[in-house]
Amino acid sequence: MSELVKLAQRVKEASRVLGILSAEEKNRALYAIASVLRDSTPEILKQNDADVQNARQNGVPEPMIDRLRLTKDRVESMASAVEHVARLEDPIGQVEQGIRRPNGLEILKTRVPLGVVGMIYESRPNVTVDAAVLCLKSGNACLLRGGKEAIRSNTALAAVMRGALRACKLPADCIALLEDTSRETATEMMKLNGYIDVLIPRGGAGLIQSVVQNATVPVIETGVGNCHVYVDYNADIEMAVNIINNAKTSRPSVCNAAETLLVHKDIAAAFLPAAKARLDLSHVQLRGCERAREILGHGVIPATEKDYATEFLDYILAVKVVDSVYEAIQHIQTYTSMHSECIVTNDYANSQTFIKQVDAAAVYVNASTRFTDGGEFGLGAEIGISTQKLHARGPMGLMQLTTNKYIVTGNGQIR
Amino acid sequence: MSELVKLAQRVKEASRVLGILSAEEKNRALYAIASVLRDSTPEILKQNDADVQNARQNGVPEPMIDRLRLTKDRVESMASAVEHVARLEDPIGQVEQGIRRPNGLEILKTRVPLGVVGMIYESRPNVTVDAAVLCLKSGNACLLRGGKEAIRSNTALAAVMRGALRACKLPADCIALLEDTSRETATEMMKLNGYIDVLIPRGGAGLIQSVVQNATVPVIETGVGNCHVYVDYNADIEMAVNIINNAKTSRPSVCNAAETLLVHKDIAAAFLPAAKARLDLSHVQLRGCERAREILGHGVIPATEKDYATEFLDYILAVKVVDSVYEAIQHIQTYTSMHSECIVTNDYANSQTFIKQVDAAAVYVNASTRFTDGGEFGLGAEIGISTQKLHARGPMGLMQLTTNKYIVTGNGQIR
Repeated sequence: MSELVKLAQRVKEASRVLGILSAEEKNRALYAIASVLRDSTPEILKQNDADVQNARQNGVPEPMIDRLRLTKDRVESMASAVEHVARLEDPIGQVEQGIRRPNGLEILKTRVPLGVVGMIYESRPNVTVDAAVLCLKSGNACLLRGGKEAIRSNTALAAVMRGALRACKLPADCIALLEDTSRETATEMMKLNGYIDVLIPRGGAGLIQSVVQNATVPVIETGVGNCHVYVDYNADIEMAVNIINNAKTSRPSVCNAAETLLVHKDIAAAFLPAAKARLDLSHVQLRGCERAREILGHGVIPATEKDYATEFLDYILAVKVVDSVYEAIQHIQTYTSMHSECIVTNDYANSQTFIKQVDAAAVYVNASTRFTDGGEFGLGAEIGISTQKLHARGPMGLMQLTTNKYIVTGNGQIR
Repeated sequence: MSELVKLAQRVKEASRVLGILSAEEKNRALYAIASVLRDSTPEILKQNDADVQNARQNGVPEPMIDRLRLTKDRVESMASAVEHVARLEDPIGQVEQGIRRPNGLEILKTRVPLGVVGMIYESRPNVTVDAAVLCLKSGNACLLRGGKEAIRSNTALAAVMRGALRACKLPADCIALLEDTSRETATEMMKLNGYIDVLIPRGGAGLIQSVVQNATVPVIETGVGNCHVYVDYNADIEMAVNIINNAKTSRPSVCNAAETLLVHKDIAAAFLPAAKARLDLSHVQLRGCERAREILGHGVIPATEKDYATEFLDYILAVKVVDSVYEAIQHIQTYTSMHSECIVTNDYANSQTFIKQVDAAAVYVNASTRFTDGGEFGLGAEIGISTQKLHARGPMGLMQLTTNKYIVTGNGQIR
């Protein structure tokens, strides 16, 4: 039996204890984690600093180093996020439905934890804490596998949280970190059916695809967002400029940022120059179709098929002029990652056509795609944004980390 | 591009039309299917007869031939099942939740079809109709891959349903059958991400495992039931005998039948002989642990670890004497397929411990496991019984063939 299987077995055992705790017991552990996180800030920052030094030496690019780096403020905001999770409602134990059958059998549909959640993610150490506490609150043990660049930070954070669990007389293995960050171990983890109930990968498209291709454990795909904003023939131009500017530039590195702008041919000549003027302020590079370049000038780089398929996560925007809402929908159907798609229009029928025919977690009319987020959708917190259709779609909160158990009670009924 | 991908593409296109139909339009198609099924009975039976002859010549065992065989009555009951589905409520378009955010953004959580459902199943031709009409009602196109023994029957049934769709001016590819029943094509089907939104295998443990191991499309595991009945120290003996007899013998070939009987040591001497006397009436073969054999006599075959792990689907029952409810739970945790598990007891604390600690889709107190079923649980119809935790757990009705879409409307909101 491999070390990983032994670990997974301990996590499964811990999940059985955790799964039946009361909300009070879980909240006590969460407050303990927040408190120990604050107390351990110097040690966490020391380990994080070692990760950052190491990443620098290995030539890791600066944006990734920024995601890796912790500061006193960042640790403090982690700790207060843990307290925020403690204050959320516990979904476990809710009875969703109860029926009494003609034969007297009583059937309750109750809400229970998934069991063990496996997280595979990249170099952001805050995911270690975020994921662990959302799992804890929803009664799930977690097996965490972060990127190798953050291993010292993650190990320190996991040790802090495990210490807090022990202090609360709970099994430390409710929160387990895979310290072996090799690819082989990650692949082994993806096949731990019977130990891990669901795998949630968080990171870039490459990571997500590797998990989808290799996992035999059920997976929830998250976070790849090739999002579109379509500006219809009679859109309010100022509104459309504000929306595409916000969707592209307010935080280009996140999954709900826009990557392609589609524009109806009848509004293109008026809208595109206004949009470009605004996007130029943030130095957005446009990559346009031929018709867009005729309007904006041939200084604009020509867009390729690959551009339409790319989640840039950067100050880059593909631009395409289309003949109709139908052509816009067809383009979206071809390239969408089913995350967030937007139409800016003042045509009622087109708004309804877009809503019905576009297949995505969130479809927007006259608002920025940037709102697809657990907080904005009222979930309190999120563990990721699902771009698949099974189990959860869109922002995933505590409820999405649960499943059902039917409890059937009788007095001897047979069939 | 392979023939399968071309077919899958047509099914995906068809799903876009089907997904936005009204309940009335879908019901019209369902009634048309029922009517054409009845009218085509002679042709269906002719093709089925060819399948049966062929299976006989190939030495297919009699129970499988029984599942393969259609009769006038069976076609009639298929047709009336289709009409029953037409009468069920359509879950599509329901608004599950609606919020208005402080910034005026309105967010509706709506219910939409999954898109394309892939079914991989064995030699029961009735699954072809059952699955197709549940998918149709819930707005999903389906790609069906049945066993090769039933190919002529399935082709005839699919042709009948497709004809009915065409007569209703709907795309025939809402219901598509894979006529190539090779293993290679099935494996290719399991990797059609982007075309198939969910795969539901229905059949024996081998089929299910092959799909879980090979699929990259999200899978819902169904129907493997290694179910246990635990008789506690103070159970009502008559009730316990009735329950184990019903759970084992009322229909041994189905997934909610019991496969192992666990008995508390303090009741074993009184209960086991009574249970055996009743089970003997149905010629159930017992395979017992040492303690059970001491009570029942060494004529009883010794049980092996493998017996505990086996879903017999036959008149065979493993029997084990345990020291406590905890040992019973531990045994179940080791061997359960998380389908249906039962305790027969008159001890309140033990009933609660069992309910909390046993991890299964359905946990029973003092009732037969045979009730785990869409009809019995009030779902109207079922496409299978999920034994996994993601998306759906337990009997899956129309609701479980849907997902959510958030519709977000604003007047220029940016973040």
